[in-house]
Amino acid sequence: MSYEEKTMKSEKIYEGKIVNLRIDTVELPDKKYSKREIIEHPGSVGIVPITEDGSIIMVEQFRKPVEKTLLEIPAGKIEITEEPKETALRELIEETGCIAKKMEYIFEFYTSPGFSDEKIYLFLATELEFGMEEPSEGEYIKVKKMKIDDLINMVNKGEINDSKTIISIFFAEKYINQK
Amino acid sequence: MSYEEKTMKSEKIYEGKIVNLRIDTVELPDKKYSKREIIEHPGSVGIVPITEDGSIIMVEQFRKPVEKTLLEIPAGKIEITEEPKETALRELIEETGCIAKKMEYIFEFYTSPGFSDEKIYLFLATELEFGMEEPSEGEYIKVKKMKIDDLINMVNKGEINDSKTIISIFFAEKYINQK
Repeated sequence: MSYEEKTMKSEKIYEGKIVNLRIDTVELPDKKYSKREIIEHPGSVGIVPITEDGSIIMVEQFRKPVEKTLLEIPAGKIEITEEPKETALRELIEETGCIAKKMEYIFEFYTSPGFSDEKIYLFLATELEFGMEEPSEGEYIKVKKMKIDDLINMVNKGEINDSKTIISIFFAEKYINQK
Repeated sequence: MSYEEKTMKSEKIYEGKIVNLRIDTVELPDKKYSKREIIEHPGSVGIVPITEDGSIIMVEQFRKPVEKTLLEIPAGKIEITEEPKETALRELIEETGCIAKKMEYIFEFYTSPGFSDEKIYLFLATELEFGMEEPSEGEYIKVKKMKIDDLINMVNKGEINDSKTIISIFFAEKYINQK
């Protein structure tokens, strides 16, 4: 059984700095046609920086699309010439000023595969060194070192509202408890 | 300290069936201007349907934006007149044919707050009744009842690639183990 959708037509609506929008006309399994609005995104990395004492290095920043300041894991868009791991090392330094001697791939996932192809590659950063680097200019980010138990409580109370960050906190809880 | 971004101009680029695209010109804390590409989405629900024997009712469907068939929790877009809980009850029936006597709000999160305002309201569905309803026509979806341990293994092996589904499986593991 395959329910794949065959592309009959593809129309570019917008090409931007971060996202593109296109509309595909697809043929469904019953041969009817339908339209799919698709947001193209170059992909991102998320980093779960875990310290020796079982804390996570988090960042707080204003997110214009939702008009809110959110507490998140460090993350960023993959640049054209980069491998995801390079992005992870670069973004961790730029956002937190922290260097990870160990950066391990965890897994990858789509943020919203119903309308977007954005994929996040998640990395575990350990053996962290602080204070060697300064966060980049123009990154309006507040760095916070937080205990895993406090983060779990915040998730349960609905106080953390970013999907990659909730995944990362659940992952970090297991990782820390297994150590 | 507030790093909020003030909207100086807002330009609608596209209004679609599921998403809109607009570009906001914002003033940063240093008074410089920048552009934000923003995808507007009406919001979605995700449902974590847990059976008496600790299995999860999952759905498999083709996702055009990523050109892949993904294993996910049941989910769907909130219609204009709906409360999220109504959407959850409706989508669970439409996608799986299953009625939940108990539908409890868990928490909510943004799928990708860097460029989109899509929010997912997550619900726990229990006391499930099967076979009373047929999945809707035109929903090309395969329903799968799966054990939580198998799903956790799949997440760890990188075989589940949808953010709301990874969150839900981690949540379900805790819920089932606490019972």
